Amino acid sequence: MIKAIVFDLDNTLVDFMAMKRQAIGAAIHAMIDAGLKLTREEVQLRIDKIYKDKGIEFQNVFDQLLYDEFQKVDYKILSAGVIAYRRAREAALVPYPHVYKTLMELVKMGLKLGVVSDAPAKEAWLRLSYLNFHHNFDHVVTFEDTGIRKPDPAPFVKILSLLNVKPHEALMIGDWAERDMVGAAKVGMKTVFARYGDTFGTVETNADYEVNDISELIDIVMNENKIRI
Amino acid sequence: MIKAIVFDLDNTLVDFMAMKRQAIGAAIHAMIDAGLKLTREEVQLRIDKIYKDKGIEFQNVFDQLLYDEFQKVDYKILSAGVIAYRRAREAALVPYPHVYKTLMELVKMGLKLGVVSDAPAKEAWLRLSYLNFHHNFDHVVTFEDTGIRKPDPAPFVKILSLLNVKPHEALMIGDWAERDMVGAAKVGMKTVFARYGDTFGTVETNADYEVNDISELIDIVMNENKIRI
Repeated sequence: MIKAIVFDLDNTLVDFMAMKRQAIGAAIHAMIDAGLKLTREEVQLRIDKIYKDKGIEFQNVFDQLLYDEFQKVDYKILSAGVIAYRRAREAALVPYPHVYKTLMELVKMGLKLGVVSDAPAKEAWLRLSYLNFHHNFDHVVTFEDTGIRKPDPAPFVKILSLLNVKPHEALMIGDWAERDMVGAAKVGMKTVFARYGDTFGTVETNADYEVNDISELIDIVMNENKIRI
Repeated sequence: MIKAIVFDLDNTLVDFMAMKRQAIGAAIHAMIDAGLKLTREEVQLRIDKIYKDKGIEFQNVFDQLLYDEFQKVDYKILSAGVIAYRRAREAALVPYPHVYKTLMELVKMGLKLGVVSDAPAKEAWLRLSYLNFHHNFDHVVTFEDTGIRKPDPAPFVKILSLLNVKPHEALMIGDWAERDMVGAAKVGMKTVFARYGDTFGTVETNADYEVNDISELIDIVMNENKIRI
């Protein structure tokens, strides 16, 4: 009997990589407009390198870019980039199709909902708030809550404990096979691979289920719980 | 012959205090919605006190509020506040009536335009970018450019030098008599008091002119330069 669904956040509930691409693209455009004397491609390469070095959650990517290039920060260019990034993010940070509808459906079916994200607490929660998700989930576990990332069992054990369900009573859905699927299976949860996400890692997922749309969760739960319409 | 106009930023070009009130109001609402167990009035008093202690440009006011109250930061509440603040700011950060039109008119008349703000460089430039002002002004002087605030002559001398005009060839418009008017007059600039702003200090301004709408600048320049239509 499935009593809870645990979701990965980025690229499972929200298309994080698409948002990043759009927001960075808008920022590059605006910085060149504000006077940055580099081509779009040159800026993109430098930004990709900074994210590669410092991680995708690094918050001062434009400061770093300008400092590396000119040994000082031009605030006119920086601000143009930051504002364009913020505006594009506001527009681009949206859930995948059928996410809101599916979450509501699962709540109506009496299921508890959780999130397990490897993102830092502040960034994860800001994204949840942007999406008005912060009332939809019973519990959220971010990196700071356990200090260790998936596929380590700790974040999975933590969310199961908060949701007060046994491992076999919970489904884990995520887009990263080696982290979300492997980690959840290890603690005894059922697994659903989000094929529609920005899928990382191997194609071989060993998941119990694979979905191309998040709404397929409804049928999976009905099947698991032998609910007949 | 007036060749340049120098503008104060906050409460002269943009109604900064109204924006702050609206954004903070929205954030308080959202934090209570996200679970903060205080009344609106209690939160407002605590926020007012933090701004009083740390200055109106302090960026971590909600973190500080939550930490003071609970000795830890609840990210669900914090994020709800930050997102509501950002969205309200985006909507509320608008120039006073006739600002865009007046700036364009002054440019067409061949005048150079500058900004002198006591705000930190990053915050001032972010506000200028929000307003799409960053291409309208020939030069901007913020706190970091001189390290000293109005009414000290340094920021006024700096902007006059950047605009390449003599003091008597420039008009200074601002809402803070003791800073904008006194400082500009001291270096020999003509002064215009923005009566429509969130006027600080004495009512006695000793300014050369007073305006209730920024578009009155056009007539002032025409009068100074003896332009007859």
